[in-house]
Amino acid sequence: MSADPIPFRGDAFDVDCPTRAVLDQLADKWAVLVLGALAAGPLRFNALKRRLQGVSQKMLGQTLRELERNGLVVRQVFPTAPVTVEYSLTPLGADLTAPVDAFRIWTESHIGQIVAAQRRYDSAVLR
Amino acid sequence: MSADPIPFRGDAFDVDCPTRAVLDQLADKWAVLVLGALAAGPLRFNALKRRLQGVSQKMLGQTLRELERNGLVVRQVFPTAPVTVEYSLTPLGADLTAPVDAFRIWTESHIGQIVAAQRRYDSAVLR
Repeated sequence: MSADPIPFRGDAFDVDCPTRAVLDQLADKWAVLVLGALAAGPLRFNALKRRLQGVSQKMLGQTLRELERNGLVVRQVFPTAPVTVEYSLTPLGADLTAPVDAFRIWTESHIGQIVAAQRRYDSAVLR
Repeated sequence: MSADPIPFRGDAFDVDCPTRAVLDQLADKWAVLVLGALAAGPLRFNALKRRLQGVSQKMLGQTLRELERNGLVVRQVFPTAPVTVEYSLTPLGADLTAPVDAFRIWTESHIGQIVAAQRRYDSAVLR
């Protein structure tokens, strides 16, 4: 019987901390969108692919594998014919959706101000 | 006198919404770390570069330009000799730091559980 690993506090600013590599995988638009989509409930691969408009099969597969490896998403195979593969959040993944969704929703809510800033910046650069 | 642009609500799941491209720039480890570093106050380029261990000059410059274009960071040049260039958050950028820092701090606080999940995943794959 092995003991649970001792939890420790990471530092994403430290290049040698494992938090840096994890942040690189989670601070990613596809990871943010997968977590946001699964917050509403389990989805099959093709349903997720439709929800995340424009994602490629390869990119979605890679994102799901990383989320699964990080303990945030669980992949369940049901012995139907053909087999059904469903993705859902683990308790850890469900816990992460609060800050991740807040971040995505902030971006959606402020897109008007951001686009206005982009136009001001671009017209200043072209001037 | 031009009116403020009409704010609208974006949808990051919509491939044609400008939110998607903005999310791609903000859901990025360097953007998350720049916003987290500037939350404590203005910093010069080289101080930011030291704070974000391992970032290249080119990547930091590109990240700062994107944040500036999105209206989140302001670049100020002071006429010292040599000139001093300082970066700080705009009010919009300061508003974004709350959800972005919550996301980064969640990752730092849960890195023990995530690393444990990675080990379980890797040993299952190798089995």
